[in-house]
Amino acid sequence: MHHHRASLGLHPLAPLHDDHAKHERQDLFWSRVRTTLREPFAEFWGTLIMISFGNGSIAQVLLSTGQVSAPGGNGFGTYQSVNWGWGLGVMLGIYVAGDSGAYLNPAITFSNCLYRQLPWRRFPAYFIAQLLGGMVGSCIVYANYISAIDHYEGGHGIRTVPPAPKATAAIFATYPQPFVTKASQFFSEFIASAILMFVIFALKDRANMGMAKSDQWFPFMLLFLVFGMGSCFGWETGYSLNLARDFGPRLMSYGLGYGHEVWSAGGYYFWIPMVAPWFGCMFGGFLYDAFIYTGQSPVNAPFLGLSHFFHPRREVRAKLQAEKDLQMV
Amino acid sequence: MHHHRASLGLHPLAPLHDDHAKHERQDLFWSRVRTTLREPFAEFWGTLIMISFGNGSIAQVLLSTGQVSAPGGNGFGTYQSVNWGWGLGVMLGIYVAGDSGAYLNPAITFSNCLYRQLPWRRFPAYFIAQLLGGMVGSCIVYANYISAIDHYEGGHGIRTVPPAPKATAAIFATYPQPFVTKASQFFSEFIASAILMFVIFALKDRANMGMAKSDQWFPFMLLFLVFGMGSCFGWETGYSLNLARDFGPRLMSYGLGYGHEVWSAGGYYFWIPMVAPWFGCMFGGFLYDAFIYTGQSPVNAPFLGLSHFFHPRREVRAKLQAEKDLQMV
Amino acid sequence: MHHHRASLGLHPLAPLHDDHAKHERQDLFWSRVRTTLREPFAEFWGTLIMISFGNGSIAQVLLSTGQVSAPGGNGFGTYQSVNWGWGLGVMLGIYVAGDSGAYLNPAITFSNCLYRQLPWRRFPAYFIAQLLGGMVGSCIVYANYISAIDHYEGGHGIRTVPPAPKATAAIFATYPQPFVTKASQFFSEFIASAILMFVIFALKDRANMGMAKSDQWFPFMLLFLVFGMGSCFGWETGYSLNLARDFGPRLMSYGLGYGHEVWSAGGYYFWIPMVAPWFGCMFGGFLYDAFIYTGQSPVNAPFLGLSHFFHPRREVRAKLQAEKDLQMV
Amino acid sequence: MHHHRASLGLHPLAPLHDDHAKHERQDLFWSRVRTTLREPFAEFWGTLIMISFGNGSIAQVLLSTGQVSAPGGNGFGTYQSVNWGWGLGVMLGIYVAGDSGAYLNPAITFSNCLYRQLPWRRFPAYFIAQLLGGMVGSCIVYANYISAIDHYEGGHGIRTVPPAPKATAAIFATYPQPFVTKASQFFSEFIASAILMFVIFALKDRANMGMAKSDQWFPFMLLFLVFGMGSCFGWETGYSLNLARDFGPRLMSYGLGYGHEVWSAGGYYFWIPMVAPWFGCMFGGFLYDAFIYTGQSPVNAPFLGLSHFFHPRREVRAKLQAEKDLQMV
Repeated sequence: MHHHRASLGLHPLAPLHDDHAKHERQDLFWSRVRTTLREPFAEFWGTLIMISFGNGSIAQVLLSTGQVSAPGGNGFGTYQSVNWGWGLGVMLGIYVAGDSGAYLNPAITFSNCLYRQLPWRRFPAYFIAQLLGGMVGSCIVYANYISAIDHYEGGHGIRTVPPAPKATAAIFATYPQPFVTKASQFFSEFIASAILMFVIFALKDRANMGMAKSDQWFPFMLLFLVFGMGSCFGWETGYSLNLARDFGPRLMSYGLGYGHEVWSAGGYYFWIPMVAPWFGCMFGGFLYDAFIYTGQSPVNAPFLGLSHFFHPRREVRAKLQAEKDLQMV
Repeated sequence: MHHHRASLGLHPLAPLHDDHAKHERQDLFWSRVRTTLREPFAEFWGTLIMISFGNGSIAQVLLSTGQVSAPGGNGFGTYQSVNWGWGLGVMLGIYVAGDSGAYLNPAITFSNCLYRQLPWRRFPAYFIAQLLGGMVGSCIVYANYISAIDHYEGGHGIRTVPPAPKATAAIFATYPQPFVTKASQFFSEFIASAILMFVIFALKDRANMGMAKSDQWFPFMLLFLVFGMGSCFGWETGYSLNLARDFGPRLMSYGLGYGHEVWSAGGYYFWIPMVAPWFGCMFGGFLYDAFIYTGQSPVNAPFLGLSHFFHPRREVRAKLQAEKDLQMV
Repeated sequence: MHHHRASLGLHPLAPLHDDHAKHERQDLFWSRVRTTLREPFAEFWGTLIMISFGNGSIAQVLLSTGQVSAPGGNGFGTYQSVNWGWGLGVMLGIYVAGDSGAYLNPAITFSNCLYRQLPWRRFPAYFIAQLLGGMVGSCIVYANYISAIDHYEGGHGIRTVPPAPKATAAIFATYPQPFVTKASQFFSEFIASAILMFVIFALKDRANMGMAKSDQWFPFMLLFLVFGMGSCFGWETGYSLNLARDFGPRLMSYGLGYGHEVWSAGGYYFWIPMVAPWFGCMFGGFLYDAFIYTGQSPVNAPFLGLSHFFHPRREVRAKLQAEKDLQMV
Repeated sequence: MHHHRASLGLHPLAPLHDDHAKHERQDLFWSRVRTTLREPFAEFWGTLIMISFGNGSIAQVLLSTGQVSAPGGNGFGTYQSVNWGWGLGVMLGIYVAGDSGAYLNPAITFSNCLYRQLPWRRFPAYFIAQLLGGMVGSCIVYANYISAIDHYEGGHGIRTVPPAPKATAAIFATYPQPFVTKASQFFSEFIASAILMFVIFALKDRANMGMAKSDQWFPFMLLFLVFGMGSCFGWETGYSLNLARDFGPRLMSYGLGYGHEVWSAGGYYFWIPMVAPWFGCMFGGFLYDAFIYTGQSPVNAPFLGLSHFFHPRREVRAKLQAEKDLQMV
């Protein structure tokens, strides 16, 4: 098992609580599987919970728009409910996925590999787990709302994509506002991802003094950070900020019959939330490390870390050796 | 008294704080009663508080729909107020019912018996307390809003059930949207209960590392979990997720004159929130224990715990013995 | 100074932090005054802050109703903003008034005297401080919104009371919905006060186990408790629950020209929020102490404390002696 | 470097966490720069984050007003979203700027110099950092929403100022309601700043007993304090309360083509949020120190600190000497 974990870039010893170690039944097949895949399982379930609440909130608000029999007489939620839904989905997902680091986003995992010494070898397993979590989470929402979608679209099996007037594809993936140019689409996802990463690094920086912090506050603050993303930068492109949140459900919606428009809508918008978050998170993390972070970071090096490009092999070899010394790979 | 408590499956010693033990007047009849019934009383009052706020929020929002004299000109709340009302009702109910474990829901109590070694013998007393709490809580709301209900329904003593246009029965029990099929009704309550139980087990799992947790955060997180249930999975069937929340008030509304429709509405929908939450919570708890939980659980056993079915008597006898050793029954 | 404090029922030594004691300049007149009146000052400022935010939120939402130039096109807030305004007003008021116990409500002070050994002699000073805080707080709101009130009412100096169509008196004091009977008015204020007191006693009960608590959470939970009061029990009578919150601003609004209707409106409703909260808080406190509280309380006594009525003098003398031993009076 | 820091009024040793001190590369030019300017950098980034979320929330809500394709059918947010946006912007800005004290507001910095022994020499660097943070933050929002602004205003490069019907200048700076007199404008900003400062001093006062507090709660409480400012005192003048929040973005909007009206609108309103917050914060801080604060403050002195005016040179010399002893200047 240690060997399998090491091959995934995970620490040979799974993160198990002392009190529970005695219950671990390594004689059982399933217990061995889940100990081996502990962190990817955590990312999978955390992302699944995040997407269930997030996509679920859009489904409920969109499909019940204007319903007069609701208490209050105007549907079962507003756009703000969607902001709360994504915010609390991320927060609860982090609680579920505590054992893996709870990134729930490939671009954030990537930035942590780049700036915070998360082993690169873990990236593929986390990536796959997050993507699958996004797909399964959106499937749950689809299964839950299938009769309501039929009702809203106007018939059994009708599935349309924005800007069709009764489109429901936006429940799952994001679609941009019609007037936004391609450059603005990219910039919107880029800058929002940069702010996301910048603030997450601030919230995780134990050396950012003045305000005492603790892990107890981190998930709760993500609630407000993601709520703020949706309230302040969520209109133009739908604040995907995350390949697993957008591409996973989009692929699922394609498979379930929303048609080729899930790719072509908004001028083939679909690639922007696949690409922009990586650059945004990289940029946001760079800014935090360049201006505020004082810990170990490739940016805290000559020429703001650009020297790493000159001796890549030496850097990589040194890093791998350090990880091996810590038995992390 | 120890004997009476043991017969209810409660620990012979009631959970009393050391500082207060000296004030306990065991010479008084009432003090003996309430020490004996300490946990059921806690469940009763916690459920009562939860239902008071929850049903109260629906009453206020529904009955004041569209009232132009409100500040803001559009009623005294929106559907979101209902989400907050149930969320904070659960949170404050947990604070009130701290001494019993604060389940406030028979299906959650059931899952804790099944997966978390809560003695089965406690179940009946908790169940009755929760059901009574739901009934009395909804009575308080009815008494508070009786003149407003008369005013809204259009006359003294008129009481109607959805989909009647001025129905007020939905203040108390849940009624499904008209287009939802029976299978979707069941699935909606089932999957929402499963997510509820899954996340509660995550929030209660002290071995879920990475994010430090404490009991201080648990009630507050339930606020957002229940808010999220209402915002993301609350439209189709009203997110009962709880027999005590739905059947108790429904029975009360039947007794107060809402008529036979409280049972027949939505194609005799009433049995779904009585049945689905048990399966949902069982399934959600199973998933958490199978994939993430590493502590003592029947799932962490050969064949994912299915072996228990082959030797039920041996299992039951061993468990009872363990509880007796701990003086829990 | 000790003498003056004792005459107000305050502990001879003012609650001063050790780190600050050295800064106390008892040679200065004003320092002596404020040390003497430390707790009443705290109640005054806490109530003032509470009323400023609470009345301010009603003013903003009511006076801007339907304004299309607002972001979002529909006024500067909704009824929910009023719920948040009162909730956060109470929370911030508690932070300001920490040194006095932060009751901010005569009926809650009264219940604490009755059930929690707060010396009765403190009651008058607290009462006056709370009432003055309510009056001054509502004056600040009036001064801030005076030109907007003129604009909304339709002319300089016009001031009307509900149910006049452009009435602004409800910014300051509460007025009931027109269809609510006198009995329902009383019951609504009574039951809401009872729930308020019941939950506050639960949140303050350090022996309510199961859920760890701390003073850090108390003010924050009051935010949600008061938000819930407004969302779930706030429509029929305006959830005053507090003489200082209602009578103080009502008196102020009478003095500023709203006319005799501030007393006569709603069938001379004004006396209900002056009277019902005392009974409600007394009843809620009684229920908590009778069913859950295990500490020192007059209810935890033979015949649920009714025996105190038989020997009042003995009781009073014993209590006074105990307070004297603690140098509290 | 120590010399450069001292010349800015900063403590010779930058606030670096022990764990990170070893990573500080004083051989690198950039590391020396950012260690020297650590606190101003923190104020810059904190203010930038605050303004990004705050201005962003107004942009999203205003520009999407009434859009029917939104989930819920009525735009991407309401005025309440703006309140949350500013509240969480301040909270997250405080987390980012932890190392400087996180004032994010020149008037609050000023009050801390006046009442809380923050060295006056730090003021200019903080002031410039806050102003630049406000300007750059609003530039980010402008860049993000540029195509949406074109779309809303009705054409490429059209930029108008309230009360023009499609004005977008209010995204960046504040503009008063038309019916508010000059005196009311000033009073509104003055009283809201006073309440802001009063409550901040209460939340920062470790000697305010009764309610345990900690730095962990401070940023979160600012969320609600600022939300309350917007909900209760935010309508008449837009609750700037902060020169960096208002003048910085206003200057930016002037530079980007909104024209001379950014200064002349509202009867040359622009100077009020530049001036009133200083007096408001000074007054609010004075009230807190005069009535509640027991620590070291110029108010806790003969004649409420007015004696300082009689011997200014002596006072200044003594203070400077004390700061020098602590190596703070």
